[in-house]
Amino acid sequence: MPSSVTVAAAAERLRGVAHRTPVLTSSAIDAIAGARVFFKCENFQRVGAFKFRGAYNAISALSATEQARGVITHSSGNHAQGVALAARLCGVRATIVMPHDAPAVKRRATEGYGARIIACAAKDREIVCEAEIAKDGHVLVHPYDNDHIIAGQGTAAWELFDEIGGGLDALFVPVGGGGLASGTCLAAAERAPACHVVGVEPAGADDARRSLASGRVVTLDEVPATIADGMRTRMIGERNLRILSKHLTEIIVVDDAAILGALRLLFERLKIVAEPSGAASLAGLLAGLHPLPENARVGVIVSGGNIELAALVHMLA
Amino acid sequence: MPSSVTVAAAAERLRGVAHRTPVLTSSAIDAIAGARVFFKCENFQRVGAFKFRGAYNAISALSATEQARGVITHSSGNHAQGVALAARLCGVRATIVMPHDAPAVKRRATEGYGARIIACAAKDREIVCEAEIAKDGHVLVHPYDNDHIIAGQGTAAWELFDEIGGGLDALFVPVGGGGLASGTCLAAAERAPACHVVGVEPAGADDARRSLASGRVVTLDEVPATIADGMRTRMIGERNLRILSKHLTEIIVVDDAAILGALRLLFERLKIVAEPSGAASLAGLLAGLHPLPENARVGVIVSGGNIELAALVHMLA
Repeated sequence: MPSSVTVAAAAERLRGVAHRTPVLTSSAIDAIAGARVFFKCENFQRVGAFKFRGAYNAISALSATEQARGVITHSSGNHAQGVALAARLCGVRATIVMPHDAPAVKRRATEGYGARIIACAAKDREIVCEAEIAKDGHVLVHPYDNDHIIAGQGTAAWELFDEIGGGLDALFVPVGGGGLASGTCLAAAERAPACHVVGVEPAGADDARRSLASGRVVTLDEVPATIADGMRTRMIGERNLRILSKHLTEIIVVDDAAILGALRLLFERLKIVAEPSGAASLAGLLAGLHPLPENARVGVIVSGGNIELAALVHMLA
Repeated sequence: MPSSVTVAAAAERLRGVAHRTPVLTSSAIDAIAGARVFFKCENFQRVGAFKFRGAYNAISALSATEQARGVITHSSGNHAQGVALAARLCGVRATIVMPHDAPAVKRRATEGYGARIIACAAKDREIVCEAEIAKDGHVLVHPYDNDHIIAGQGTAAWELFDEIGGGLDALFVPVGGGGLASGTCLAAAERAPACHVVGVEPAGADDARRSLASGRVVTLDEVPATIADGMRTRMIGERNLRILSKHLTEIIVVDDAAILGALRLLFERLKIVAEPSGAASLAGLLAGLHPLPENARVGVIVSGGNIELAALVHMLA
């Protein structure tokens, strides 16, 4: 990563553009977790998820010539919204390749920000995206395998360290394509080198865990079936593998039931609306698999909150 | 009100004890409201509602002799939890008279803080409370007709003015017994005298509106049937009438459907969990009955978030 593409530089670029999201705590959840837990609430970020950070950082860093070509990406939802809004703010045209099964709320919001949407089968998203680039010359804003995206996503953890005064023993972060996890690792490496960064993946979507174990990017044959729709990626990126291999302490795998339990806790105790991917990090903490010291201070990144009430009801019924 | 019992003094007393709750915004809700809206999120307060502020302010201000007698109050839920937690923090015994139909989540939480609960019919709560006082000599911490309670509740608006830099054209606040509304009026009178403080009451529970119209405390014959369980009070207090008569601009009455619509918006757009009483203030803004200038800056106090997921589902089904 070039030295000018740092989390600190991204934090500067996002100042006054991205929301500085609040850090919440709950003594009830502290009691359950046996630790002091600080929730960085990216469900309150613009577009309802951390994805706006990376998207704005990447698109605003493009040259005028690149911006004039328009941007394109593929995403099941939150990155789509992030790119759509960031592009609009930068005066750039955006095209989004979106799987048919993306949540309706995310699709509508993406359209609402003025992006053009191309729907396709979930497993074909990369191919369709490449075909469009060959045809129209748009600049790809990759959802995670992109230095500016990684640096932008890292600003959530960067702000968390600003906010809480003092280090953390561990920081739990969801791993989809690995953009947020990579950026979080870079932020922690600079701000709190002793902090363990712990990735969390849903069962059946543990491509990052397998990639780290084998030292190369492992691609899942099928799109994973987890309820955490933001984590249905089949592979992490090369940049992500490199960063996570160096900085991530370990990956915890949680099943859908654990994610739903965490979602309910966030609803009833923290009083926030999270989507399943956003609750995965808490599920990873509560799994109790990562050893923590006495009176540990732990960060949990709640990555997003884009869920319809009806969907939540259906999941928790 | 004695001059030492001010909102400023309460803010000092609550520093480091109450949460300094975040102020959230949503461009989607701004577009719907046609104004810039700042939500003061007391659903994130300790015990899940603003009530902790007044309760702690009142109980910590008691003399050692008074504290030794223990405290008592009557409440359908949030004030109960506020008194129970504040009493525990101050090392004081607490007894709570609670209507049978209080939400289970609020009752369980109150017990969890170590308070003794006496259940009774909703309309008998004041009488049962008085009988207990006659018997055991506890000190009454009235839910709203109490100077320290009023000053404590006013600290939410006080912090809002700290936070947003600059004044507000209007500030919407729910009116139950009138403690929060009175404290909000006192805070606004000092911090932003030009700001219109607008009270919101559920249809059928408009005792404050009637009291202000007639210049005396009007008591409803029946406990109101609104879904806003925190606003099922039959009357406001004498102190509240005095303060609201002087400072409140007007009262807007909203029906349950409007409250549910606001609740859904808070869920889907602001990504927060509010209880119906907590959504009433937004419903009052969206009713559009209070005239606002162009590009108005508006505050909305979200008073609490104590609702079970199952109850929310039932309401919005």
